[in-house]
Amino acid sequence: MTEPLFVIPLWADLIAVGLGGVQGALFASGFTGQRRLDLLGVTIIGIVVGMGGGLIRDLLLNTTLNTLQNNWYLLTAILAALVGMLLAGLFQRLNRLIIGLDAVVIGLFGAFGTSKALAVGLPLVPAVFVGVCAAVGGGILRDVIMGLPVAIMHVGSLYAVAAGAGCLVLAVAHALGAPLVAAAIVGGSVTTIIRLLAVMFDISLPEQRRLYRRKVAVETAAIPIVKP
Amino acid sequence: MTEPLFVIPLWADLIAVGLGGVQGALFASGFTGQRRLDLLGVTIIGIVVGMGGGLIRDLLLNTTLNTLQNNWYLLTAILAALVGMLLAGLFQRLNRLIIGLDAVVIGLFGAFGTSKALAVGLPLVPAVFVGVCAAVGGGILRDVIMGLPVAIMHVGSLYAVAAGAGCLVLAVAHALGAPLVAAAIVGGSVTTIIRLLAVMFDISLPEQRRLYRRKVAVETAAIPIVKP
Amino acid sequence: MTEPLFVIPLWADLIAVGLGGVQGALFASGFTGQRRLDLLGVTIIGIVVGMGGGLIRDLLLNTTLNTLQNNWYLLTAILAALVGMLLAGLFQRLNRLIIGLDAVVIGLFGAFGTSKALAVGLPLVPAVFVGVCAAVGGGILRDVIMGLPVAIMHVGSLYAVAAGAGCLVLAVAHALGAPLVAAAIVGGSVTTIIRLLAVMFDISLPEQRRLYRRKVAVETAAIPIVKP
Repeated sequence: MTEPLFVIPLWADLIAVGLGGVQGALFASGFTGQRRLDLLGVTIIGIVVGMGGGLIRDLLLNTTLNTLQNNWYLLTAILAALVGMLLAGLFQRLNRLIIGLDAVVIGLFGAFGTSKALAVGLPLVPAVFVGVCAAVGGGILRDVIMGLPVAIMHVGSLYAVAAGAGCLVLAVAHALGAPLVAAAIVGGSVTTIIRLLAVMFDISLPEQRRLYRRKVAVETAAIPIVKP
Repeated sequence: MTEPLFVIPLWADLIAVGLGGVQGALFASGFTGQRRLDLLGVTIIGIVVGMGGGLIRDLLLNTTLNTLQNNWYLLTAILAALVGMLLAGLFQRLNRLIIGLDAVVIGLFGAFGTSKALAVGLPLVPAVFVGVCAAVGGGILRDVIMGLPVAIMHVGSLYAVAAGAGCLVLAVAHALGAPLVAAAIVGGSVTTIIRLLAVMFDISLPEQRRLYRRKVAVETAAIPIVKP
Repeated sequence: MTEPLFVIPLWADLIAVGLGGVQGALFASGFTGQRRLDLLGVTIIGIVVGMGGGLIRDLLLNTTLNTLQNNWYLLTAILAALVGMLLAGLFQRLNRLIIGLDAVVIGLFGAFGTSKALAVGLPLVPAVFVGVCAAVGGGILRDVIMGLPVAIMHVGSLYAVAAGAGCLVLAVAHALGAPLVAAAIVGGSVTTIIRLLAVMFDISLPEQRRLYRRKVAVETAAIPIVKP
């Protein structure tokens, strides 16, 4: 059940990039004060969130970077970022919209990433890994570039886990013989739904545990350096 | 007007790497106190600023990393960083020199990046994108590694915009039939000149705007950016 | 003395990945309070530290990413991270163990990185560079993702220098005609030993110097990291 040629349809890819761009701009528009971004900053965030996942996916697969092979990806991401920025004030429930869009975007990127990885012949586990990186990579890049703590690293509602579950469903379904497109649709939906449920019901992953608990205080609230 | 083979002359490339290395070391030498770098740190910053743009360019183009194919790039970047560090105290107007060198470096890297991208067949918009990444990528890596806010993300004088304008001029000139070398010289110069003018006259990009302004305070003010 | 085909034995590579994963988890488990990681965060750190060096190496060499070609690397890194997390409380001298494991890991990754770079035909200096990046890259990624100051950038005991020395010994030995495997064993050992000695005797690199010292205070001390 290996496809001779795997092509994500351009329109689907552009929708994901556009949603990512809007989502990135909405996120960026929430910043005020000294972290306030200029027009360029908002555009960069839009590009990073919209295209970062695809770039990371293709780097990990060591293939030609798909999003740089035509003009539309960048134009879509930039346009989406500007629209997102201009309309940010309109949305009454900014936060819900950002989270909703985000759930759809990670579903799409995760499904595209795992599908492409399987199509180029990666085994199951790395294919799921590539999908998760594609899903959350844009957000990680965004946080690093903005100097924020990387969101997915800290205790919070299931995010990368949602991506991982969806990508795993996709890869297992494919391994069991399901056609890649069907598996991708199911997998992407699983990611989006888990993410939305996790936010709605405030489910989060258990913190790290040890068999023997001991006080080992690297106490990082105080992360030294930084002492003015 | 496609060249069968595009080669940036080694001497030109090494000059760009060397200037980048010096510029990086001057930047790093300004840090005191807890952020003070050791010899290695200064060398790393020199390598990152001098070679980072070229590495990012070649990763985005999925080609062999040009700066790792002979010994000279690394030796140049390291030597330049050490020279920059040792002579930092000599320069009376450190800041102006850093900014001046920087303007030349982003002009060179932007022109090299866009030229190479066009030469390997990328369309106009992604070629400009690759050029901008090559121009500002070293600086972004520098800021991330040093734990500083990424300079180009925040309101300030036109930086990536200068790179973008120069790369766009290059790509459009090439699309209109100009030879790549001539287009590259013009494009690189445009970048350097815009950057210098922006600094001299303190021109900056408008902040982000919304059609309907509303108070959405993710309030990040708690992360003061580089207060001199 | 070029090998027709260079293959790091899978078991050796998996040991390095596993040690990296354990080391990453021990490091992560030291964090409490707001920086406390959830299960996923610990797993991510394990993957990043265990596999980051190999990923960076292969990206720099523009080859297929070796650690994604079978299921074992990821499974090993994840399992190692979970074991490291669960057993963290058992270790009385956590810090020493972390440092000891770390010295072995950078020795292994540095030797693998330089060997592979030489095997694909890179000259001496870039081969050493790739080895150092492979050795310290996982740690840099870890610090960036966790929002910590990048450890190797700041005044401290010889870390990247140990990696550099070992990789240089490897590359020079190979250039003088030593078989690659023997050179790799010697080089990796040099790295580990230098690193351990540096920690034991608290040796550090001189700070940056200038021929003419002047007060140039970019004073960045004022960049408090995320003060809640």
